[in-house]
Amino acid sequence: MRHVLALVYRCSVFSNHLPVVCAQFRLSHNQWGSNKLHRKIKIPNSLREIIMADPKIEEILAPLRANVKEQGDLVRKLKEEKAPEIDIKKAVAELKTRKKILEDKELSLAPTEELFDRAKMEDLIKRRFFYDQSFAIYGGITGQFDFGPMGCALKSNMIQLWRKYFILQEQMLEVDCSILTPEPVLKASGHVERFADLMTKDVKSGECFRLDHLIKAHLEKIKSEKNIKTELKDEIEDLLVKLDGMTAVEMESLMKRFDMKSPISGNELTPPIEFNLMFNTQIGPSGLVKGFLRPETAQGIFVNFKRLLEFNQGRLPFAAAQIGNSFRNEISPRSGLLRVREFTMCEIEHFCDSKEHPKFESVKDTQMLLYSANNQEQGKPAEIMSIGEAVSKGIVNNETLGYFMARIHLYMLAIGIDPKKLRFRQHMSNEMAHYACDCWDAECLSSYGWVECVGCADRSAYDLTQHSKATGIRLAAEKKLPAPKQIEIVEAVANKAAIGKEFKKDAKVINDALAAMDNVALEELQSKLEAKGEFTLETEKGNYKLTPSLVSVKKSQKTVHVEEIIPSVIEPSFGVGRILYCILEHNFKMREGDEQRTYFSLPATVAPMKCAVLPLSGNAEFQPFVKILSQDLISVDVSHKVDDSSGSIGRRYARTDELGVPYAITVDFDTTKEPHTVTLRERDSMGQVRLPLTDVAGVVRDLSNSKISWDNVENKYPKFEQQETVKSAAV
Amino acid sequence: MRHVLALVYRCSVFSNHLPVVCAQFRLSHNQWGSNKLHRKIKIPNSLREIIMADPKIEEILAPLRANVKEQGDLVRKLKEEKAPEIDIKKAVAELKTRKKILEDKELSLAPTEELFDRAKMEDLIKRRFFYDQSFAIYGGITGQFDFGPMGCALKSNMIQLWRKYFILQEQMLEVDCSILTPEPVLKASGHVERFADLMTKDVKSGECFRLDHLIKAHLEKIKSEKNIKTELKDEIEDLLVKLDGMTAVEMESLMKRFDMKSPISGNELTPPIEFNLMFNTQIGPSGLVKGFLRPETAQGIFVNFKRLLEFNQGRLPFAAAQIGNSFRNEISPRSGLLRVREFTMCEIEHFCDSKEHPKFESVKDTQMLLYSANNQEQGKPAEIMSIGEAVSKGIVNNETLGYFMARIHLYMLAIGIDPKKLRFRQHMSNEMAHYACDCWDAECLSSYGWVECVGCADRSAYDLTQHSKATGIRLAAEKKLPAPKQIEIVEAVANKAAIGKEFKKDAKVINDALAAMDNVALEELQSKLEAKGEFTLETEKGNYKLTPSLVSVKKSQKTVHVEEIIPSVIEPSFGVGRILYCILEHNFKMREGDEQRTYFSLPATVAPMKCAVLPLSGNAEFQPFVKILSQDLISVDVSHKVDDSSGSIGRRYARTDELGVPYAITVDFDTTKEPHTVTLRERDSMGQVRLPLTDVAGVVRDLSNSKISWDNVENKYPKFEQQETVKSAAV
Repeated sequence: MRHVLALVYRCSVFSNHLPVVCAQFRLSHNQWGSNKLHRKIKIPNSLREIIMADPKIEEILAPLRANVKEQGDLVRKLKEEKAPEIDIKKAVAELKTRKKILEDKELSLAPTEELFDRAKMEDLIKRRFFYDQSFAIYGGITGQFDFGPMGCALKSNMIQLWRKYFILQEQMLEVDCSILTPEPVLKASGHVERFADLMTKDVKSGECFRLDHLIKAHLEKIKSEKNIKTELKDEIEDLLVKLDGMTAVEMESLMKRFDMKSPISGNELTPPIEFNLMFNTQIGPSGLVKGFLRPETAQGIFVNFKRLLEFNQGRLPFAAAQIGNSFRNEISPRSGLLRVREFTMCEIEHFCDSKEHPKFESVKDTQMLLYSANNQEQGKPAEIMSIGEAVSKGIVNNETLGYFMARIHLYMLAIGIDPKKLRFRQHMSNEMAHYACDCWDAECLSSYGWVECVGCADRSAYDLTQHSKATGIRLAAEKKLPAPKQIEIVEAVANKAAIGKEFKKDAKVINDALAAMDNVALEELQSKLEAKGEFTLETEKGNYKLTPSLVSVKKSQKTVHVEEIIPSVIEPSFGVGRILYCILEHNFKMREGDEQRTYFSLPATVAPMKCAVLPLSGNAEFQPFVKILSQDLISVDVSHKVDDSSGSIGRRYARTDELGVPYAITVDFDTTKEPHTVTLRERDSMGQVRLPLTDVAGVVRDLSNSKISWDNVENKYPKFEQQETVKSAAV
Repeated sequence: MRHVLALVYRCSVFSNHLPVVCAQFRLSHNQWGSNKLHRKIKIPNSLREIIMADPKIEEILAPLRANVKEQGDLVRKLKEEKAPEIDIKKAVAELKTRKKILEDKELSLAPTEELFDRAKMEDLIKRRFFYDQSFAIYGGITGQFDFGPMGCALKSNMIQLWRKYFILQEQMLEVDCSILTPEPVLKASGHVERFADLMTKDVKSGECFRLDHLIKAHLEKIKSEKNIKTELKDEIEDLLVKLDGMTAVEMESLMKRFDMKSPISGNELTPPIEFNLMFNTQIGPSGLVKGFLRPETAQGIFVNFKRLLEFNQGRLPFAAAQIGNSFRNEISPRSGLLRVREFTMCEIEHFCDSKEHPKFESVKDTQMLLYSANNQEQGKPAEIMSIGEAVSKGIVNNETLGYFMARIHLYMLAIGIDPKKLRFRQHMSNEMAHYACDCWDAECLSSYGWVECVGCADRSAYDLTQHSKATGIRLAAEKKLPAPKQIEIVEAVANKAAIGKEFKKDAKVINDALAAMDNVALEELQSKLEAKGEFTLETEKGNYKLTPSLVSVKKSQKTVHVEEIIPSVIEPSFGVGRILYCILEHNFKMREGDEQRTYFSLPATVAPMKCAVLPLSGNAEFQPFVKILSQDLISVDVSHKVDDSSGSIGRRYARTDELGVPYAITVDFDTTKEPHTVTLRERDSMGQVRLPLTDVAGVVRDLSNSKISWDNVENKYPKFEQQETVKSAAV
């Protein structure tokens, strides 16, 4: 997920609170991000309905929309006029503020579909061990989670379905690359230099603070003082706008000028420290080979590009994919699974030389909620549109990007994301990494707001180019030209003997630098040699004066049959933990009339277990039938759980509901009579049917694979009428 | 896999070469462990046949067997007599030497079934990108591998089948825990202290050497000098025996006494350095929270024991399982996938209070090749035996251990391990970790010798006890007693007011220490208080004198209905990379009469792709049929590859054979006529049938799921007779 880098550039919604306290061993309530939690949170019935339905709300929002539009227009104008950067920055900051006001208002006005009780859901998640904080018996550690049997099965089912949707159906090349990554690889990708935040530490306690957050809070505090002078206030406002682009030295001088101390202890603070968000270690015993835990899985694919292209018999396009863990040493992890230090990603790198897509036709009518950069700048809401229309109107840059967005949309619905709470938001130009040419995030609405779950970026040829430069290995594909072509070859011809004689041990550096010159550099070389009779070659090792006796420029003609292409890359990148969390929120339900009876209405395809087998009581007569059922279910690969614990059948149904198990088979006294029959119950409707023992395993398998629907089953088999004792069912 | 720890204790077969050079960025041939490779390696037709068949070979081996037995008896006798440890150590060292001579002779005498050409297989593995060295374009890094599309699919299929065999069929609780592990957890498990080797470094070059290997080589060199004095020679022999148990100080004095230098450069060496094999890092920004990459997945299960027990409604037995990556900073990785720094494990922890197993009956007739500790000590070969017999004779300690061994055996055969090259070897008492009560390794015969692929250990209650001690949290299950029981409760009664008054801020330490006393300690407390009138309480914070006025010991009777049990743990632990490598070796084949035409005869269940779709030529008429076939195969979830590249059909069959693809569908001119038919080819037999286009996807699915056999298909559909042009098929 490229938000890894992107998040460094743009202001993250998750990291704007002070103080940023160090990770500690401690078990506190805010591990789950719920310290500021209102017990009940309104979940709007999705923007879609607001947009579509309520003119009254639109009336309230209209002036706010106009405000955003006005500022968006100003930004555009300033950009067109090539106004000073500082003016543009100020205008963008104001635009962001106005957008935020509009969005908050929209959310607050949305009609609530239900009351979502996050504390109640988190209690269920912990109690039934979907997931929980890692190493809790040791006091726990922030930003790391262990998935218990139910969470692990849900995650594994999501991944299996992802494999089917993408690897199998799109014929992708799945790879499995190393997590430990040597430094040069991540230098080339830009992570060593850029994947960092500035920090400062309390000199006594060692407590860490993100520097920009600390300065911002300090300046805002001064700004809000009553008797502040107008000049100072204006200056601070100016500084706050500039803060985003300040260097460490500039920030340090601000710290000194305003005498900043730790906001917690009042102690002195260290000068700024660059804190890289990658976990580092040493590979091998010497301690000399620096390595990192990968911050994304993508680089493993890029460095294997040549092998993958060969595997694909040299042809473009093709896509490679990887499922695996990545790591980020977050300064302050929070919001449960949404901001963690260790997470599973599913990433696709689709390498192509044309942005058309042969299968685009098959998805073009998919209706999606799109929130374009333009609409964001103009204060307009997101719009429902077919992906075909979005591409043809140029809202989505190209077919391939559009194809993947549609496939992501379909996958998200298949695993249980509520379509009303899913939107694709385009990055605005100031959010995008400089090399990306378009980027859309699939965002899910949750009680934390809109959560970025899948990134889908057009990354052009950036990464392959970077790794090519760093290694000197050409990462490109060859494409046969329609007809042979004459091209002009320009190259530097080094007089190696003379260079060796004059520069001795530096000769290699010079020869290598000459060989690496591109056409522009060669033009300059030639013109300088001709005009001045000398050329200064600049290298990392130093500068060298070269004369026409040492080097000349040769031009020649060559017939070529192929052209070399560095492919573009479209990158859909899935954050599994974030999606999993949103699925749980979207499927957390309460039984009507019984708030205590909560359950997850997970689709059978991803439900942790497909079926429960429940003997009505501990009667020994039931045991052989339970055994047969369990064996039958195993033989058709249906995961299940036998719950023969004491407790009423209603209580045990409630327990399987909590686990999100869609089907339950009950063995009762009628089962022991010939012909042997059992009861099959569906979780969401609580409907029950009576069917032969020998049929049931196959029926559950077909239901779980979506081969048949519950309606089919209810039509085929007689209903079983017995009221569930709802009240006694609370566990 | 508990060999993590076990390998530290015992002498590893992979780490006995000098010099141990640091990991470097370099791409050298020995990355694959093949620098010393004879081009062709004899693979014996398994010990099984040697044992069973050839009396002549047995005649040659007899004196060697007798040698081992003699020494084994001596070791046993010395142990019984409680002889000095040094004598036992010497005798064990000699026993190992004799065992090695016997085993080498056995292997060399074995009739060769085929010539296995490792270089040829490795070439295929690289060329078709099953796997290859990680970061090769950056010069590569030792001990890390990237799995390409074929290796990744094979690995993923192995894991899916593992899930079915163990998680689904045995109803295990799968979990997915953090890789980054804080230090206290691995202190408790013993890894921080014990998972280390002693190193020394060249003071100038920084080159690293494993200290015991360096000393051994140095002493052996002196020993082998011609004019060495007898006393010195004897002393060195004695030192060599003692080396295994020497402290860092003792080793350092040896280095000084014999003036040891770097064997590479002759430079000075540093004093001994403890080198822990875990990768370390810091968690969080403060740099104060030390963490490691887990060296095994098992600890994640142990620290979650309480939650898992709750999930299982408090009942024993249950098993938890985890699939995931572990890391070991090997000093010198080698032998390809067999000794790496990053690897995938599948681990099971079966928690039980009784060693009987309800399903043992279902596996008891499984015939397995067992190499018991006793047979090893007595110089006897491995024996084929049913697991039922092995348990009833006490060769395998208990039913549960035996049940898992049988299930491991069946799983290994299902994924393609050659049954003739699979044995279970019991750890000898000197190999086992002190807490284990029995341990059997599933070993696969490869061109590297017998490779430990799965460990299956009875670990008793060691880990839960350790984590309980470290956290103060009781990790135990409760079991209902058949009848209520009266028990005596002994406890220290602290006079908290008096203690507080006397010891002030240390009072808490004292009260906690008193509360944590076990019965033995309490007995001592009571007797000291009675006899001397005081007791010295020893704590980490210091010692405190306590008198009868401050503390007393109270005994009382209590009726209990449950007993507390710290369960035993049976741990089957699979090294996925090692197994994968052995599967590839066991299934690497050459076509009769054409050495160049190699292939992998992988079982369809694990084969990376199930099917290839091959249009006879680039004729446009074939394209719609290829498209239909591809869609049909996708709709029945069959992974496949369309190969419409140019090249004869024979050449393309050869290519799919190399990838281990079991089935190929060919579209030819007859396909375009009604009724549409295609050719289906089976890889190993190269047999072909002709069948309707509409049947073929379903047939391949059923073949891949082992629902039908190739024989069934050949009986049902007409043979398609067309000689494959073998010679032109070389790619």
